[in-house]
Amino acid sequence: MEYSVHLKNDRFLRALRREPVDCTPVWLMRQAGRYLPEYRATRAQAGSFLAMAMTPELACEVTLQPLRRFDLDAAILFSDILTVPNAMGLGLYFIDGEGPKFERPVRSPADIDRLAVPDMETELRYVMDAVRLIRRELDGSVPLIGFSGSPWTLACYMVEGGGSKEWGRVKALALNEPAAMHKLLGVVTDAVIAYLSAQRAAGAQALQVFDTWGGTLSPSMYREFSLPYLTRIARAMDSGAPARGSTGSPRTGGDSPRTDTGAHTPLILFGKGNAPHLDALFDSGADAIGVDWTVTLEDAARRANGRVALQGNLDPAMLYGSPDAVRAQVRMALDSYRDGNGGSREGHVFNLGHGMSPDMNPEHVAVLVDEVHRYSAR
Amino acid sequence: MEYSVHLKNDRFLRALRREPVDCTPVWLMRQAGRYLPEYRATRAQAGSFLAMAMTPELACEVTLQPLRRFDLDAAILFSDILTVPNAMGLGLYFIDGEGPKFERPVRSPADIDRLAVPDMETELRYVMDAVRLIRRELDGSVPLIGFSGSPWTLACYMVEGGGSKEWGRVKALALNEPAAMHKLLGVVTDAVIAYLSAQRAAGAQALQVFDTWGGTLSPSMYREFSLPYLTRIARAMDSGAPARGSTGSPRTGGDSPRTDTGAHTPLILFGKGNAPHLDALFDSGADAIGVDWTVTLEDAARRANGRVALQGNLDPAMLYGSPDAVRAQVRMALDSYRDGNGGSREGHVFNLGHGMSPDMNPEHVAVLVDEVHRYSAR
Repeated sequence: MEYSVHLKNDRFLRALRREPVDCTPVWLMRQAGRYLPEYRATRAQAGSFLAMAMTPELACEVTLQPLRRFDLDAAILFSDILTVPNAMGLGLYFIDGEGPKFERPVRSPADIDRLAVPDMETELRYVMDAVRLIRRELDGSVPLIGFSGSPWTLACYMVEGGGSKEWGRVKALALNEPAAMHKLLGVVTDAVIAYLSAQRAAGAQALQVFDTWGGTLSPSMYREFSLPYLTRIARAMDSGAPARGSTGSPRTGGDSPRTDTGAHTPLILFGKGNAPHLDALFDSGADAIGVDWTVTLEDAARRANGRVALQGNLDPAMLYGSPDAVRAQVRMALDSYRDGNGGSREGHVFNLGHGMSPDMNPEHVAVLVDEVHRYSAR
Repeated sequence: MEYSVHLKNDRFLRALRREPVDCTPVWLMRQAGRYLPEYRATRAQAGSFLAMAMTPELACEVTLQPLRRFDLDAAILFSDILTVPNAMGLGLYFIDGEGPKFERPVRSPADIDRLAVPDMETELRYVMDAVRLIRRELDGSVPLIGFSGSPWTLACYMVEGGGSKEWGRVKALALNEPAAMHKLLGVVTDAVIAYLSAQRAAGAQALQVFDTWGGTLSPSMYREFSLPYLTRIARAMDSGAPARGSTGSPRTGGDSPRTDTGAHTPLILFGKGNAPHLDALFDSGADAIGVDWTVTLEDAARRANGRVALQGNLDPAMLYGSPDAVRAQVRMALDSYRDGNGGSREGHVFNLGHGMSPDMNPEHVAVLVDEVHRYSAR
């Protein structure tokens, strides 16, 4: 590959390995988005959200936009969470203000039998091209995160045919036809593993799985229909022992910029509402667990006890507060992690507990990012 | 008062006092609702949702409808959660498919200064008239539950002017103007206490507070902006020591129908997403805590350790499952409670973890109710 193999800023990757950092790294879920006027301009130019996501040059442009404004420690591929089911033939489309929809949702065991893992370098080539282009454009400034939806979360949209308040249809399928549901989750998991592996091969330096809807499940259903598939992904991506506690590995020493080619590519499992399941997630084989704001980082870090890094967890709504309120909330979250992590800030990636919203103020994002760096460097 | 003072079925009140019962009592949040054709007929007759809620005869009719179909152990007043802010002058209205809205939301400290506790027997007389009418019509068959939204939940709608995905405006007010927010919550709490007291005086035999949106707060914000007001309500309603563990009280002995006039009126605090806060809620002074399905009843009961009764907690979406799946889920929830409660089913009120939806099948509700009684009577 032709990319720079030296990262100018590797704070994010070091934090995922629980190594010392000069200050806590920060990125924000949905940091590329409608709250930025330059994003809205690119979106208007593209004509539609899907055209933007499926054109590598435009996906690259919006990926880089927040990095030009804010001192963020990672870029995240701009894409849609539903690219994989779309490539499986479900027919993704968007109606403004209504969120994503599928023309051909999965409703029966026969529908499930027809599903197959798509080819990553043909049907999802636009995603891999975007990853390659972004890596080139980033030129080693910060690492690039690739991502996928979790199997349960993708299955939610695939069965419902779009978003839902209750996810009644997919839960009914799980209850009434558990074997069919496991077959669906199995093929989706194979596709997610292929998708993440292809993004890694194309240049993604870290990977995140979004289990946005796992937290809507009861504990017994979560343990049956979400957790095992997250664990399978974590094991398959080989994000187990080598990355954790391996400060002595050839790739991880020193403070100077370092090569990352060939190193283990860390995996983050983010789950909204995953607090009841943290102990299982800590043992999943993932390098880091992303948590929302309904759990304190102190509690999560204490329970993790050094097994993984943690990512999170400010309530995105805190960005509606004044700059002073944002700073106070940032400090509280940083201190909460440190208090639960034996007094050390190592192993923490600062983030929100969920994605940003269109009506947020970019100036408050700058305040947040700067306060994370300033306060944690002390 | 002219009502019958003998309850033919007092299972629900006995369970709230953690007394022995012949089987576990059950009622369902939003058991009166659009999933019933007879409800839709009354709604059409009324012309609007608000007209139905504000006409005691119609509110009484829809309250009683589910009891004619199902062997439920309690009735719950049919009303809207936002009657109190409406009586405070905010101008409640509904647009079909969009949920409730306020014409004059609370946006500034000056708006808050203008708020006052409404008079219950004038501005909210239609609610009290409905309670009196329902009590008369129930004729002692089952107890009637009165209810209110929690202060935080009411403040959410009052500040946003309607529902919200993120509650950014109300959280911003809490962050930026905490003194104003506490003033708002203070006057709303006074109003809620007056409202619940008036319902009790009118004949409600149990009371429930719905903290629907407390679970969207971080733990520190929950402890500041929701919990203290729930606790104040519980203490003010005097639902403390007298009801708990007082099996020797003159009102609670024996298996035969008994008088309830003048007895302590139990209070249930329900909170969606309240699992992280159960220990504090168990000490709030409430008689029972209602939980959603993201926590197991086994875990909740173990943590409660006899301090309170528990209400819950089936995922409402389970009603989309087949009758056999519904039965299996019911048995699992019943056993989960028993396992956490030292092998006893006492102190459990079966319910969903959230309200029912319009597209649910009434036949599945019958299956659920009958299975609760059948299985727990063994």
